[in-house]
Amino acid sequence: MTGQTLAIGPYGDQERAALMSELGAVHLPGPEGLDRLAPENRAALRAVAYKGHAPFGAAEMDRLPGLGLIANYGVGYDAIDVHAARARGIRVTNTPDVLNDDVADLAVGMLLAQARGLVAADRFVRSGDWAAGRDFPLQRKASGARAGILGLGRIGREIADRLAAFKMEIHYHSRSEKETPGWIFHAEPVSLARAVDFLVVALVGGPETAGYVSAEVIEALGPDGVLVNISRGSCVDEAALLDALETGRIGGAALDVFVNEPRIDGRFLGLGTVVLQPHQGSATHATRAAMARLQRDNIVAFLAGRDPLTPVA
Amino acid sequence: MTGQTLAIGPYGDQERAALMSELGAVHLPGPEGLDRLAPENRAALRAVAYKGHAPFGAAEMDRLPGLGLIANYGVGYDAIDVHAARARGIRVTNTPDVLNDDVADLAVGMLLAQARGLVAADRFVRSGDWAAGRDFPLQRKASGARAGILGLGRIGREIADRLAAFKMEIHYHSRSEKETPGWIFHAEPVSLARAVDFLVVALVGGPETAGYVSAEVIEALGPDGVLVNISRGSCVDEAALLDALETGRIGGAALDVFVNEPRIDGRFLGLGTVVLQPHQGSATHATRAAMARLQRDNIVAFLAGRDPLTPVA
Repeated sequence: MTGQTLAIGPYGDQERAALMSELGAVHLPGPEGLDRLAPENRAALRAVAYKGHAPFGAAEMDRLPGLGLIANYGVGYDAIDVHAARARGIRVTNTPDVLNDDVADLAVGMLLAQARGLVAADRFVRSGDWAAGRDFPLQRKASGARAGILGLGRIGREIADRLAAFKMEIHYHSRSEKETPGWIFHAEPVSLARAVDFLVVALVGGPETAGYVSAEVIEALGPDGVLVNISRGSCVDEAALLDALETGRIGGAALDVFVNEPRIDGRFLGLGTVVLQPHQGSATHATRAAMARLQRDNIVAFLAGRDPLTPVA
Repeated sequence: MTGQTLAIGPYGDQERAALMSELGAVHLPGPEGLDRLAPENRAALRAVAYKGHAPFGAAEMDRLPGLGLIANYGVGYDAIDVHAARARGIRVTNTPDVLNDDVADLAVGMLLAQARGLVAADRFVRSGDWAAGRDFPLQRKASGARAGILGLGRIGREIADRLAAFKMEIHYHSRSEKETPGWIFHAEPVSLARAVDFLVVALVGGPETAGYVSAEVIEALGPDGVLVNISRGSCVDEAALLDALETGRIGGAALDVFVNEPRIDGRFLGLGTVVLQPHQGSATHATRAAMARLQRDNIVAFLAGRDPLTPVA
């Protein structure tokens, strides 16, 4: 199989070693390196093991005439132009489910950290303010609050299941109403935002959900509302969010994803009511190993002539 | 009722105003101020609304010859010498249950923050390290871990219920085995610590549990184990904990309570694997209001000749 797989993206040492030993993969740090491969090597490539958020579209695919599979590392594959892949008969896979727990854990952890001021409280202790007799301000109760899930897919459901254990009233908006244990469906995101204290964004990325959390949704969430985003920065009208945070028209936010990450808008950095995370939803040792394993298994299946395990196209 | 109630402790403005308007209470910042009251005023006092961690024992009680009730603000009443109170026919009340949710929320939030590195990750984003292209290290998966609850009282049970929603296997140690949904009982704390990844201390305070989390328990938790404490600093052999944290014989900790708080041991302040909180288990607006209400209701009932609502002695 040597020479049939191209790994593209910021892989760690262990992952790269596994891609090389199991698949004989060639590695490029990013798609812009494609031109550096010799044409005969490019022609031999049948699978791409893709990682990262740089766009991978028609132009990149056309440089790899033998390409039959793009195996994405991660559940969100919005970096890959699936329409262009489909038009060329290229299959696309992602790594669903193995990361649901981690992303849901982070969403709940960020929500609790925002409500209870965990980050500021840790700083308050370490700075000596506590020892000096100062009072840390009272925070906000989380249990019993109303939670809204925007996008009740597999990750959204994991988040809702966890928040239900905190005695929260669960509201959601999704393309269609779902079978739930009494959770409250909203046909419109504005209605959802108006009904809840914490709004957790668990949408898929891509053009269809771009700006879905609009200025109107943020306004409806209101000065006591908190936005939690673990999906994609593109889902939120970030300019509207920053304005609302700076003027107190929204209560706070807990964000793992941003437009233009990692070079995020500097206006976020000084905000005290916001928990900021470096897109680490799935970034645990156990889950990253499971994602890498599933990505390679998709490629192994494809190169052996079998159906890939977790296709999206 | 004016002049029958003495409020002692660091009350906020709203709480003090309510104690004065509803009960005509006199206020002292701490028990050491008792001698400043005129003897005839002291003799008129029938109830103390107590807040704080300064000891309130036989000597203080004997300065208040008419005292019939010490109403504690908080569920933990280890600052009050209950034996001395009982010997003098003085009732003691606390404010149970109304703070269970908050304390459990904080325990779970601290556990998730420790596992997923939330505090360091927030700092990593704000410092510009993320924007500069650096990688935040992979963290630890929380869901599916084995959790141990040390002390399965009302708060311990709330914590276990929440952690079960994270698909954790729940182990516990308590004075006796309890009715549970399949949770695993350990007769000894060392056996509990050996069986779990996260050990959450939810014991009552006081002399009976002093040092209950001993050097042996910490050793049994081991280099991958994490200690979470939301009960009392006195429950943990803090010298052993600090040694184990500094030498990596325990994986990490998330601590809301300490020996000698707020002047905690300076060795904690530099530890990166530890989440530090300023004893804010019940410190939300909603819960502190409910605690203050219940404390006053206990005093109102007692002064009206009725049984107090939530007596502990």
